[in-house]
Formats: sequence, structure tokens, C-alpha cells
Amino acid sequence: MKPDLSAQSVGLVTPQVAHFDTPFQLSNGATLDQHQLIFETYGELNASGTNAVLICHALSGSHHAAGIHDATEQRPGWWDLAIGPGKPIDTNRLFVVCSNNLGGCDGSTGPNTPMPGTSTPWGSQFPQPQVRDWVRSQKLLAEYLGISRWAAVVGGSLGGMQALQWAIDFPDWVEHCVALASAPGLTAQNIAFNEIARHAILSDPDFRGGNYLAQDALPVRGVALARMVGHLTYMSADGMSDRFGRELREESFSRDGDQERVFQVESYLRHQGARFSTRFDANTYVLMTRALDLFDLSEGYTNLTTALSRAEANFLLLSFSSDWRFAPQRSIEIRDALMAAGKAVTCANIQTDNGHDGFLLPHQTYERLLAEWMQRVGRS
Amino acid sequence: MKPDLSAQSVGLVTPQVAHFDTPFQLSNGATLDQHQLIFETYGELNASGTNAVLICHALSGSHHAAGIHDATEQRPGWWDLAIGPGKPIDTNRLFVVCSNNLGGCDGSTGPNTPMPGTSTPWGSQFPQPQVRDWVRSQKLLAEYLGISRWAAVVGGSLGGMQALQWAIDFPDWVEHCVALASAPGLTAQNIAFNEIARHAILSDPDFRGGNYLAQDALPVRGVALARMVGHLTYMSADGMSDRFGRELREESFSRDGDQERVFQVESYLRHQGARFSTRFDANTYVLMTRALDLFDLSEGYTNLTTALSRAEANFLLLSFSSDWRFAPQRSIEIRDALMAAGKAVTCANIQTDNGHDGFLLPHQTYERLLAEWMQRVGRS
Repeated sequence: MKPDLSAQSVGLVTPQVAHFDTPFQLSNGATLDQHQLIFETYGELNASGTNAVLICHALSGSHHAAGIHDATEQRPGWWDLAIGPGKPIDTNRLFVVCSNNLGGCDGSTGPNTPMPGTSTPWGSQFPQPQVRDWVRSQKLLAEYLGISRWAAVVGGSLGGMQALQWAIDFPDWVEHCVALASAPGLTAQNIAFNEIARHAILSDPDFRGGNYLAQDALPVRGVALARMVGHLTYMSADGMSDRFGRELREESFSRDGDQERVFQVESYLRHQGARFSTRFDANTYVLMTRALDLFDLSEGYTNLTTALSRAEANFLLLSFSSDWRFAPQRSIEIRDALMAAGKAVTCANIQTDNGHDGFLLPHQTYERLLAEWMQRVGRS
Repeated sequence: MKPDLSAQSVGLVTPQVAHFDTPFQLSNGATLDQHQLIFETYGELNASGTNAVLICHALSGSHHAAGIHDATEQRPGWWDLAIGPGKPIDTNRLFVVCSNNLGGCDGSTGPNTPMPGTSTPWGSQFPQPQVRDWVRSQKLLAEYLGISRWAAVVGGSLGGMQALQWAIDFPDWVEHCVALASAPGLTAQNIAFNEIARHAILSDPDFRGGNYLAQDALPVRGVALARMVGHLTYMSADGMSDRFGRELREESFSRDGDQERVFQVESYLRHQGARFSTRFDANTYVLMTRALDLFDLSEGYTNLTTALSRAEANFLLLSFSSDWRFAPQRSIEIRDALMAAGKAVTCANIQTDNGHDGFLLPHQTYERLLAEWMQRVGRS
């Protein structure tokens, strides 16, 4: 039986902001003289500081991983499924931290925040961060919070890439590394999908070269299209067939004035795109997909095994059988490199039609495996 | 050894036009009082009329299937690989006909041709054709050419759907039916990809509700994006990795003025999109993808077996192992229905990384199987 997860919420949460006045240099050479990170925490840090867990978000995620901001909020944080009292990442026992990535659009310094000393948003001037930059900025946040080691760093998709990078870049900081539906780097097909999403945004006349906010415009069409493309790659073909089939939905959208036959899947995608287009910043979407494209876990090393040989963490890798964005094979590549490097790794492939979205959706085996793993986290 | 196909060209060809002045009613109830089809023929119709082969084109194809229009043409027709003297569809022996579908943009009546009695292009007023309408219009063309039966109807993808529909709607007209990389109908995922392509076009401000030609505009951005999405689904993930990997290409396109790292796959897709956007009509792209979405080979019958039980043709179904648009399983569905209906069917799955594009690309086994099958065509 699935437990009633709604009874296990972290409840009302208030985002916090950490300001950093020391210059922060990015991998591409650019320097931010100052920046801020918005973050949330759930649970309490214990006296010995051994129960801190970092959650890294994926492309469209934010610091708001669990609970609600006020009683009217219709949806809880993006990973409320996994985080809360009695949930797999148990806030009765663990101190959970989740921040909005640098370059994000939910309150951390990014394209939609003002350039220092001005009221003009960064827009297209915001420098391109990479996964290893996010890891370094998350380390600043950890130190700000008085944390000197993570009991676990956990993430799915792009979040899993950050978790893996943490384990390599700061080995003595990471006791457990949990990477869900992740990959050591993008395939040409992955990059091509991202390129189409970016192209949709960049070619929207309202993008204005990235300076739409300063010009009171919003590239909603481009962002909606980008989201539709992305969303489609998160679902499996079988999952879509089960959910939508070829069922029709009558609605007023039409090419030539007639009631046109619209398939439910079309209606669904349009809705997803439209909703996202007013919520998410276009420049951030471009930066995030670029960071994905540029990610290469073996960068700076001769190969993946050499890179991962630096790590000291215990690794959990979960893949999802119908995920064709970061297919199970990509997790196996990481597992094999960890094995070759003599590291401790558990790797499981969850049988599901949920596709890449699998790490965000309810699934008994998935939740059980994650919960069992997290039971061993923060015990030392 | 692969034969030197370039030495086996049909050479210079001149498109012909057939005018039809009898009203032609479409499945959606609309009537065209008059229309024309542009077409090409290769080879000679024999005296007994037993060697005629119809080629049906796919989404972005045209009547120009083989040979060149003039000595300066850089590329031959879209299926020059298969059609010509000594090629699998051997024009030394067969009379090959290929027309541009009704609603197309290469010379047949469609959105970019004038409405009767005006100089205004049809634009968004052109009625939505379906696969069975194309079959009926191709039958008019056959009769115009003095053909009373096809030795074979052949097509790939959307073209294969037309071939299959021919075999059901006019059983005594089709001796052999060859459907390559085809499907009995679209999946929800297929429809979703088409929807994204259409959305890219319809949301381009230059689409002007479909009346861009009358307003001297051209939705090149939307069409380019649509093509990029389509093209990506025609290639296999492995094929893309082999061809592009993660190799970078320096070029001037940039988000923020710097030389940006651009992956070769991005550069390739942008080029494909840009080239297509000035060549292909946006309204036609919308109509063609709609026809795909609406196609259901079992429509009007209780199921696929009942539908195919009407057919009298010998069927060849070829699928391509890495095709994830119309996966091999879709051909197996057709084969199984044909088997259940007691029909003659040969079904083969070509092992290749060429993806859905497999039916258009050189491949020894594919070309051999097609040639061997076509050897038996037109012999009666």
C-alpha cells in the first residue's frame, strides 16, 4: 500500500536568501562581484553537523523542493514526493537544503535580477554557468550555513549531474551521492533537442536579443515551444499512449475557423507550454540547457574512470526503464566507471512507463529503494 | 560492392500537369471545383498497361522523385536512390509515376496556388485533405494517364500509408503494395511531435493566420523550427552520435557576442531548418502533419484485420531497426493483421542506424530486398 504522503508534508516554508560579497569566478572566466542564492531548508541541522543533505534541482526546478509557501499554493515544492517527515528523505532526521542555481530565475542572481549598481536586469549579459560552477556556489552556501560536509548530495537529471560533480570536485565533502535519471554527458540527440528549444526562444521576436525585460517584452511563444519540446522528451512513448492514446478533444483552437479535431495530447502540451511560458525566464532556460550541453563529467581527466577515482562517496544510481532522454545505459556507463575505479556503487533500473519524469513521479519500487538508501544516510 | 548508382539516372525529366475540371470532394466535406496535379513519369507504359508503378511521397516530398530538372540541379529527385535504369525500381522495365499530393506546395493545387477565379492564394482556406483523398486523386491521375491498374503502389512513411490505403480502398487496382517505414496510425508521441511543429509555425507572427503569401510575409522561423523537430525524429540516437558525437564547431552565432561553443549537431540542424524554411510552404506543412495525425488505416472498419481483409495485393513491409518515429513494431502490427486476414505479406526489419530516414538512404540489404521484390512486379 502506498502511504498517504500528503499527511507527511514539511508544511509552510519560507525561502531564505544568502548574500555573497566576495567575487565569484565562473569557469568561462567571467566574475560576479557579488551574488545571492535563494534557498530553503527542511528539518534541523544536528549539533555534530552530520545530517545535512543537499538537493540539486534540474532544468526547470527551483529552491522550492518541498512544502508550500502559503495556504493558497496549489502545488507543493517540486520534490514533495520525496522530502518530508517520514518520507524517503526524512526531515525528522535529516537537514535538507535546496537552493536555486546561480543563473536561475526564482530569486538567485541570474538574468532576471539587476546588474550590480543598476536597475537593469542582466538579461543576455549574464555569464554562462557550468555544472562545476553551481557546485562551487553550493559549497559557499554550505559554509554560510555552517555545514562542512554533506551526508548526501542528491539530484535527478541535471541535478544528478551536480551530485556527481560534487563527488569528484570535493571528495571529502560528500558521504553519499545519489544521481537519478542522470548521465555523464549529453548525446548528440540530447544536444539537438536542447538546440531546438533554444532556437525556439532565440528566434522569438519578443526575445529581443535576450533583453526583453528591459524592453517590456516577453518571449512567451518561444518559451512555450521550448517547454513543449522538453516535456515531450520527459515522457515515454508508451506512457503517452496509455495516457492520451488517440483520443480527441474538442476545443476552439482552429486553423480555419471550424471546430477542429484536436487530440488530447496536443491540448495537454499546449497547456504545459503556455503555463511555463509566463513562469520561467527565457534567458535562464537558455543558460540551463547550455550548461547541460557543456557538461562532461570526465572533463579535465583522461576518462570517466579517472575522474570518478577521485570520489570517496557511496553512490546510488537509479535509472528509469522508459527514459529515452538519459537512458538506463547512461547510468550503466557511470556505474561501470565507478566499478573500474573500485568505488562503492549501487545501481538499479526502475521498471516504469514514466520516462525521464520517473524521478519526480510516484512509484512504489522507486520510493522504497530511495527510502532504503536514505536510511543509511546521516548515521555516522 | 555497391553499384555506381549515379550512372543509372533517369536523366533530365520534365514535370507534367494534369487539370481536372470535375468537382472533387474531400473527406471533410469540402469540394474543389477544379484542381491540378503536377507529376513526373519515368520509363514507358507498356501496351498492355501492366507495368505502371505509383510512388507516393512522404511529408516533405514532391513529384520530383528521380533524375534532374536541368543540368545545374545539385541534387536529383528525392528517391533517385531507388528509381532508374537498373535500379531497384527499374525504369528499363517499369513505368513509374509520382505526383505532388493535393495540398502540396510544388505545383499541385494547394495553399500556395490561387483560389479559382482569383489571384489570391488559398492560404489557410485550403481544405484539409486526408490520406484517402490523396488515394482518390491519384486514381484520377491514373485514369488520365490511361492506367487501369498499378503493378505496384510504393511509398515510405506517409507514402507507405497511401500505398496501404490504396490496397484497401481500390483492391482490384493494386497488385503489389510496398510500405516502407510506415504505420497503421500515429501514436500519441508521434502526434505530439507534429503538434510542436505546427505550433512553431502557427505561433510565428509572420504566419499571419496562414495568409502570409497574400500579405507578403513568410514564416521562415516557424517552418525552420518545425523542420528541425521533424528532422531530429527522422534520425536515430546512435546514428546522430556516430555522425556528430559531441564535436564542436566554431561559428559566429552567439548569445552574448563571444565566440560561443556550438556543437556540430546544432549547426547541422540550423542549416537544415533554414534551407527548408524558404523551400517549403508553411500551410502545406500544417496540412501534411494533420493528415498524418488523422490517418487511421482501420477507420470505417471494426479493426485493422477487417480493413486489410479487403485487400488483394501482395504486401512488402520493410521497417528500419533504429526508426523510433514509426518503429518496427508498427510494421509488425500491419503484418499481423495481414496474416490474420489470410493475405500474402513479406515483412523484414533492416538493421541500420539510419532511423526513420532509412528508406531514403543507401543500405545494401535494404536496396537488395527492394530490388528482389520489384523483380516480380509487372511480370503478369
